[in-house]
Amino acid sequence: MTKIKCVISYDGTNFSGMQIQPRTRTVEGEINKALRKIHKGEPVRIFSSGRTDAGVHAKGQTFHFETDYKLTRAEWKRALNTLLPSDLHVNDTREVNTSFHARFDAAEKEYRYYILNEQERDVFQQNYVYQYPYELNIKKMQQAAGLFEGAHDFTTFSSAKAETTGSKVRTLYEVSCYQGGSRIEFILRGDGFLYNMVRIIVGTLLDVGRGKLNPSEIAELFNKHDRQCAGDTVPPQGLYLWEVTYKEDL
Amino acid sequence: MTKIKCVISYDGTNFSGMQIQPRTRTVEGEINKALRKIHKGEPVRIFSSGRTDAGVHAKGQTFHFETDYKLTRAEWKRALNTLLPSDLHVNDTREVNTSFHARFDAAEKEYRYYILNEQERDVFQQNYVYQYPYELNIKKMQQAAGLFEGAHDFTTFSSAKAETTGSKVRTLYEVSCYQGGSRIEFILRGDGFLYNMVRIIVGTLLDVGRGKLNPSEIAELFNKHDRQCAGDTVPPQGLYLWEVTYKEDL
Repeated sequence: MTKIKCVISYDGTNFSGMQIQPRTRTVEGEINKALRKIHKGEPVRIFSSGRTDAGVHAKGQTFHFETDYKLTRAEWKRALNTLLPSDLHVNDTREVNTSFHARFDAAEKEYRYYILNEQERDVFQQNYVYQYPYELNIKKMQQAAGLFEGAHDFTTFSSAKAETTGSKVRTLYEVSCYQGGSRIEFILRGDGFLYNMVRIIVGTLLDVGRGKLNPSEIAELFNKHDRQCAGDTVPPQGLYLWEVTYKEDL
Repeated sequence: MTKIKCVISYDGTNFSGMQIQPRTRTVEGEINKALRKIHKGEPVRIFSSGRTDAGVHAKGQTFHFETDYKLTRAEWKRALNTLLPSDLHVNDTREVNTSFHARFDAAEKEYRYYILNEQERDVFQQNYVYQYPYELNIKKMQQAAGLFEGAHDFTTFSSAKAETTGSKVRTLYEVSCYQGGSRIEFILRGDGFLYNMVRIIVGTLLDVGRGKLNPSEIAELFNKHDRQCAGDTVPPQGLYLWEVTYKEDL
């Protein structure tokens, strides 16, 4: 038995998310179909680094699976890409230690969120950015972004529907915000993220940008432990699971 | 009765082309629905600069319609954009002379075609470029592109299925080819284009780029008047109707 780790990218537009669900098109469902074909009809279970919601994209999602088949890295990649649909692509595959787990061994995740800060709708970017027409104070957003870095209890900034039991403390290594023309990029890196956490942090930073919230109020929001106090959950199409880093990569 | 000219952009991915057809989603069908709503249920016919195929995009398609309603430019634009789906957008509207016709008065059309010259599939660009993995000689393609400029009978470089009766002579003012990283841009400007003409010219230029065809053979192809002699019709998703220019704009 060998264990294979895969890094994939997908355009989330036409997927009902990462996790398999009956009667809808999911990333996991498509990968299962391809692996089953390679394994001559035998089902192969995959384990991903975590879920992504419907409409959310990935540049570097990861998963692993076990197999008795002996293929080289290049052969696994080619076999999978031949069978996968055009909005889902295997960037890389490699054999890993049998103790490896794509979810439990993830040391760091990076998400990015893209905003198009323009009034005129861009029909070509509708599924790939969040088009936000209001004027934004980038300096204030950058100042507020930094306040999310470090170890915090993120209860205020995660969905109340989150199934997480146990600690809601997560450590963010980077929360930054860049402006290039009318495009605004948010980069968030951390040891883990709660449900909807990236989208709620970005929504809160947009409130800061519009002057609805002051950076000095962020600390207080953390103390409230109440999702209602934070900004809106921004829509999925601006969000990209950018990279998952493992201990052995650090 | 006033006549309104509109400039629109659309992401062609989820449209079965510009022209209305029963039981499929078309650009014209969506515009008709919006105009009918604005006119309280009364149908309003539109006349476009020309058709585009399924999957083909537009940055500057044009159409006109007649109306008894008195709205300002900004009001027409807002009314339409409020009703239109997110992959179809009105960039501009204005009142024109009652003799204006979006198709017959078009003096010049510009099309662009985009190729991503990379081996690794980019899932985010699959609907917006033609991904072409083979090595290309850009210098030779640029040399061949210039040979399409001027007045020619384009029978060889248009679909045999074209319904055009009459002359197949068209004048191209510009046929150029630029490389920026792994992105290749083709710009074609002319007084008119036959069915599939842009896609067949680009397909022929790719044959030149791969060394299957020599620039010196292009003149001979024109003389053959036979579609079979030209290159493949490249797929629709790389094609953009970029701009339609009218006499009064020149």
